Amino acid sequence: MSERVYIYDTTLRDGAQTQGVDFSAADKARIARELDRIGIDYVEGGWPGANPTDDQFFAVPPTFKRSRLTAFGMTRRSGRSADNDPGFNALLTTPARIVTMVGKSWDFQVTVALGIELDENLRMVSDSVAHAKTRMEEVMFDAEHFFDGYKANPAYALAAAKAAYDAGARWVVLCDTNGGTLPHEMTRIVGEVIAGGVPGSHLGVHCHNDSDTAVANSLAAVTAGVRQVQGTLNGLGERCGNANLVSIIPALMLKMGYDTGISPEDLKNLVSVSRALDEVLDRHPSRGQPYVGGSAFAHKGGLHVSAVAKDPKCYEHIAPAAVGNVRHIVMSDQAGRSNLVARMAEIGVDLDTVKRDALVAVVEQMQVSFDPHEVKDLVDLVKRLEHEGYAYDQAAASFELLVRRALGEVPRYFELERYRVIDERRRNAKGDWITLSEATVKVEVAGKEYIEVGEGTGPVHAFDVALRKVLTTVYPELTALELKDYRVRITESTVGTAAKTRVTIESEDDQGHLWTTVGVHTNVLEASLEALQDSITFMLFRYRDNG
Amino acid sequence: MSERVYIYDTTLRDGAQTQGVDFSAADKARIARELDRIGIDYVEGGWPGANPTDDQFFAVPPTFKRSRLTAFGMTRRSGRSADNDPGFNALLTTPARIVTMVGKSWDFQVTVALGIELDENLRMVSDSVAHAKTRMEEVMFDAEHFFDGYKANPAYALAAAKAAYDAGARWVVLCDTNGGTLPHEMTRIVGEVIAGGVPGSHLGVHCHNDSDTAVANSLAAVTAGVRQVQGTLNGLGERCGNANLVSIIPALMLKMGYDTGISPEDLKNLVSVSRALDEVLDRHPSRGQPYVGGSAFAHKGGLHVSAVAKDPKCYEHIAPAAVGNVRHIVMSDQAGRSNLVARMAEIGVDLDTVKRDALVAVVEQMQVSFDPHEVKDLVDLVKRLEHEGYAYDQAAASFELLVRRALGEVPRYFELERYRVIDERRRNAKGDWITLSEATVKVEVAGKEYIEVGEGTGPVHAFDVALRKVLTTVYPELTALELKDYRVRITESTVGTAAKTRVTIESEDDQGHLWTTVGVHTNVLEASLEALQDSITFMLFRYRDNG
Repeated sequence: MSERVYIYDTTLRDGAQTQGVDFSAADKARIARELDRIGIDYVEGGWPGANPTDDQFFAVPPTFKRSRLTAFGMTRRSGRSADNDPGFNALLTTPARIVTMVGKSWDFQVTVALGIELDENLRMVSDSVAHAKTRMEEVMFDAEHFFDGYKANPAYALAAAKAAYDAGARWVVLCDTNGGTLPHEMTRIVGEVIAGGVPGSHLGVHCHNDSDTAVANSLAAVTAGVRQVQGTLNGLGERCGNANLVSIIPALMLKMGYDTGISPEDLKNLVSVSRALDEVLDRHPSRGQPYVGGSAFAHKGGLHVSAVAKDPKCYEHIAPAAVGNVRHIVMSDQAGRSNLVARMAEIGVDLDTVKRDALVAVVEQMQVSFDPHEVKDLVDLVKRLEHEGYAYDQAAASFELLVRRALGEVPRYFELERYRVIDERRRNAKGDWITLSEATVKVEVAGKEYIEVGEGTGPVHAFDVALRKVLTTVYPELTALELKDYRVRITESTVGTAAKTRVTIESEDDQGHLWTTVGVHTNVLEASLEALQDSITFMLFRYRDNG
Repeated sequence: MSERVYIYDTTLRDGAQTQGVDFSAADKARIARELDRIGIDYVEGGWPGANPTDDQFFAVPPTFKRSRLTAFGMTRRSGRSADNDPGFNALLTTPARIVTMVGKSWDFQVTVALGIELDENLRMVSDSVAHAKTRMEEVMFDAEHFFDGYKANPAYALAAAKAAYDAGARWVVLCDTNGGTLPHEMTRIVGEVIAGGVPGSHLGVHCHNDSDTAVANSLAAVTAGVRQVQGTLNGLGERCGNANLVSIIPALMLKMGYDTGISPEDLKNLVSVSRALDEVLDRHPSRGQPYVGGSAFAHKGGLHVSAVAKDPKCYEHIAPAAVGNVRHIVMSDQAGRSNLVARMAEIGVDLDTVKRDALVAVVEQMQVSFDPHEVKDLVDLVKRLEHEGYAYDQAAASFELLVRRALGEVPRYFELERYRVIDERRRNAKGDWITLSEATVKVEVAGKEYIEVGEGTGPVHAFDVALRKVLTTVYPELTALELKDYRVRITESTVGTAAKTRVTIESEDDQGHLWTTVGVHTNVLEASLEALQDSITFMLFRYRDNG
């Protein structure tokens, strides 16, 4: 049997301290249900009495199947008995049957921040724990600033921890409040605390990431003997964040052999639990987040890709499926032939079937600075285009079109013969400023010529309006195409407004399918139109010829 | 004397593997100069021969004052002599006088990925190092997959490391290629390698962040004896990134007492070096990044703030100034005001002197969605404009102009009366595609009206040409204005091409002064023109009225 380590989540309390984070009670309930779903032992709901949101949350907390709710607060105040401190007693009367009380363990903090006697602080800890024990199922003590305190005055910090333990605390949680501790210090200090009389079975750890080592510190503490780890989803928390449970849990389970109460099946929900927090926060998920990020198992280098194809463990530290993640092969300038072959295999295309004259024909349709006849093969073409500024790893739809065009698979659904866009700002008859964008397009579709004009809020929008006015008459499905995102950047940042720009467009249909296309040109408008035409072509190709 | 640990940066090579990262040779040179400025020992420039960008970079590498350039590549191929492998020899003929060669140390990789005999792999390592030694100042060996290899077959992994050391490698770099190793394993394995005969003075470590412990792993390796650390700025790198040098360097210097060759004065540039990479990548700096993030020393209202006021070490693990960062007190509305007062004091302006009707007049010149008469004061105006999408913290020149306009200090150097921009693509008489951008502007300058037309590579360029054709006749100093960078962002990403865009323009004069301006509009062209006009106005104001 592997040893049990308990997981304690403080996303709803310490995570809520983050700059820019403002949970509603409903947000908190939603996150709490996710924590319960994966099987986190303790869910700290907030600080009853500290603000209206936390009061609202504790008034009707969510019902848990597996997790246990805890309420956070402070020990009794100095100079009052525990019985006689209304704020302290309010903590004990919420629906939560577990309470976590924070108190000081750094002599400097007691003297400077609280301005009280060192002994009175120890009495505050033991009185509060003993009193709470008579009312609650479990009592925990968060020893604030424990590691800084221990470095300054080991005897006093240990005395505070022991005061809580001796008074009956189920857990004494050693907090690295400022996040300044490094793992080797963590190992040493936890060892000394256990030797000093607080058993590891009753010790927890609470780390912050100011030194970029919060996950490692938490794991070092477990290795040294603690059996409870506190942290937050995605490392949410003030300053540089709290210890990230999304990284700690798989390390404990998959690498260190501990039992966290979370089953291997539960662990497959790790990606979705992590994403649920991003959704509540309306944040883009971090692509590079360990274990769960969209790039965590993405392979770009050519060598890596060929090795991964032979055996995934060549470049993967765990099986992505164990945490609900997936492998992803990306295209890039770095890519060698094997990368391209793998990407094309994903699309279902064989590289050897590409003819050289087909490549020349494809390039002749693009506005590039190299001679189409110099292109050796498709790998060479991708490299040249990426050098021109096409970033295909961010634009999978344009990449697929490029490949399929080289194979002659993509019909010419339409041909833009010419366009003219006019942007104008002037005063109207009343003397008010008016700005207008107008686009005229001449397009050939299925042997027939059309000319149309459109107005828009800007030149790209006007062009889109005019072009789709033509195309939807022939391809009605294009009414469902929506442009979701539009990004522009300079690829060589030295030549000002005459520099080469790359435009990336993300599109969506009414089924929720997303695809991304890219265009490159010195003229931002040309680059936009290229990306836009690719988007339309990709949708038509998917709907009509490759559905 | 404290012990020396050498820092090796691989942002330009391993960092370039990151999904979505696409450095130009100019980008690489710019980053390299930052690394040299802070005093990084080794700067790995890339992989000569792997792609056109790296070839271009090594053709004319930047000149360093302090750093040393290294070229990355592979050991000789199997079945060839080192002399007789053109790819390998190409590595030794670049302007870099240090070479870092990667090779296998995991028996499984040798057998499965390379498909060669274990002994031949060891010969590849020693031959390559020995041969390179005869040509280069220093030779390093990156032992790929060292830790996974060591766990599987310690004797073979150690044999590969020793082969490189015995052949004369200055550094044998133990790579945690898959990023799966935890700090306690790092400590154990490095200790065994040193005991096995490769001295720590010749050992380096190269970590990836897949387990969220790359910084801790690097520090654990140093504690165990290695004396070179490889990593990247901001932890850039594929999947979950490389070890973050921006976190490792201050830990080594401020917490562990090592000499990194970087002085305490250099360390104060840590924030600006970190930001320089974000600028090249056109990324928002991570607010929560340890040591250098905007929130790394941010304290929210209440207990923390009053404690920090009593003594900063209550909630700060290091002094923010040591790494060039600043403390930030977040106190809702109140902070907004004191923040603005502080910024205006920087410019030399007193907030109380701003008149309400002056504010209304300023707003009437802008195209905003709120009623100018609703604006309460300058703080309120800045908040409303930031809500519209103006990002003044990235555009100090536009911020200064806004404030000085509110004070009535900025003359109207010119008045754009109307403009028209035409973008067109059509076939010329020969049947070739031509794209042209033409702009007409009507401008009043000092009571006189001018009309001019200009051509450009795109609409903004054409407008710039036409406008400056007028203005340089009156203000000849504007010929020195150069547009350095142009960035476009959607501020709300839900409405496609009709969404609101923010344009940021960076300008420079011939003295090397840089300034940044911002424009916001649903029409990307209007937003560009607003930023461009601000840039011109700012230069005139600086030269004529506030020099």
